[in-house]
Amino acid sequence: MTRLEQQMQFILEVDKLKNITRQTYIADGSRKEDDAEHSWHLALMCILLSEYANEKIDVLKTVAMVLIHDIVEIDAGDTYAYDELGNQSKRERETAAADRIFDLLPYDQAAYVKELWEEFESGETPEAKFANTLDKCQPALLNDKSGGRSWREHEVKESQIKNRNADTFKGSDKLWNYVRNIIEKNTRNGNIKADGYEDEIHRII
Amino acid sequence: MTRLEQQMQFILEVDKLKNITRQTYIADGSRKEDDAEHSWHLALMCILLSEYANEKIDVLKTVAMVLIHDIVEIDAGDTYAYDELGNQSKRERETAAADRIFDLLPYDQAAYVKELWEEFESGETPEAKFANTLDKCQPALLNDKSGGRSWREHEVKESQIKNRNADTFKGSDKLWNYVRNIIEKNTRNGNIKADGYEDEIHRII
Repeated sequence: MTRLEQQMQFILEVDKLKNITRQTYIADGSRKEDDAEHSWHLALMCILLSEYANEKIDVLKTVAMVLIHDIVEIDAGDTYAYDELGNQSKRERETAAADRIFDLLPYDQAAYVKELWEEFESGETPEAKFANTLDKCQPALLNDKSGGRSWREHEVKESQIKNRNADTFKGSDKLWNYVRNIIEKNTRNGNIKADGYEDEIHRII
Repeated sequence: MTRLEQQMQFILEVDKLKNITRQTYIADGSRKEDDAEHSWHLALMCILLSEYANEKIDVLKTVAMVLIHDIVEIDAGDTYAYDELGNQSKRERETAAADRIFDLLPYDQAAYVKELWEEFESGETPEAKFANTLDKCQPALLNDKSGGRSWREHEVKESQIKNRNADTFKGSDKLWNYVRNIIEKNTRNGNIKADGYEDEIHRII
């Protein structure tokens, strides 16, 4: 198989990402979005919002990261953020998926994409921190716009969201502050269940 | 409205791209894809296939271009490639859409995105040529993979496809050669209607 044939095989395989449904509704609330749509949205947000990254980021690298960050879900499925049991086995399922799917690419590109995905998962570099911030902020924007439907259907508690977002400020204080206000508004209006969670001292930008 | 609020308004508005259905079926043939999914696919292809661009390209700029290239269809709709009447009014409808939607962004970013879209439409720079090549190649890959369903449903003729792709080689001879082979295979097997179209001398890489 030629190099181009290997690349095309991968490009057709990842088309399956269009069939991986997430728990987030699109903004008009008519249906849930899929991973390919979500990844497009993050990539565009990355280009338009990179000015708010806490640290200087390589925008192309961060865009590439968000474009590939969910591909492992083709095999591993979308594990809902608040599914405790699912999240226990998530890492193992996703690593096997990364090996199978990314290895369809020529050796150098397989290594590049695998490293990019690992970097995203580790969340330690400026690019990975910002990509993770976008990945957490986008569903909150959509959930708010669609009237909190996903939060209500899953009876999500404020403490769950706040705990899950403990690191979200690391990529961008400014974006996290914006989204935290949205979360608090939706806690006040009952879309998110208030459970007496005490926030840490507010981070002021 | 703050700069960030303007950006967020745009980011939520373009969510509507997820509702713009194209004529191309996803690879498994189960349903048609939408513009957001298509744009994600092109962005990923751009990163993985930029080595085949005829001229040196700025990859980030090209990725940004494909991420925004179909946003005007939120207002103007997806005009099927072989809809002659629709294509006559396309430019006017799309320019009005660009003004309305891109102007939701802060002034500098509105100008940046509008210029990027105009550059894509003109197809003259190395980045625009490569983006247009990807935009033409991706549906052919999916149509082939899904058994030629979209070509058959629209009774597409070889001459229509070849004429529509008269400029596709400009971004990448190598990718166009790959896709031309696919088109010819599908003409031989009847998914595309052979109509005695005489190809120009084959471009050999």
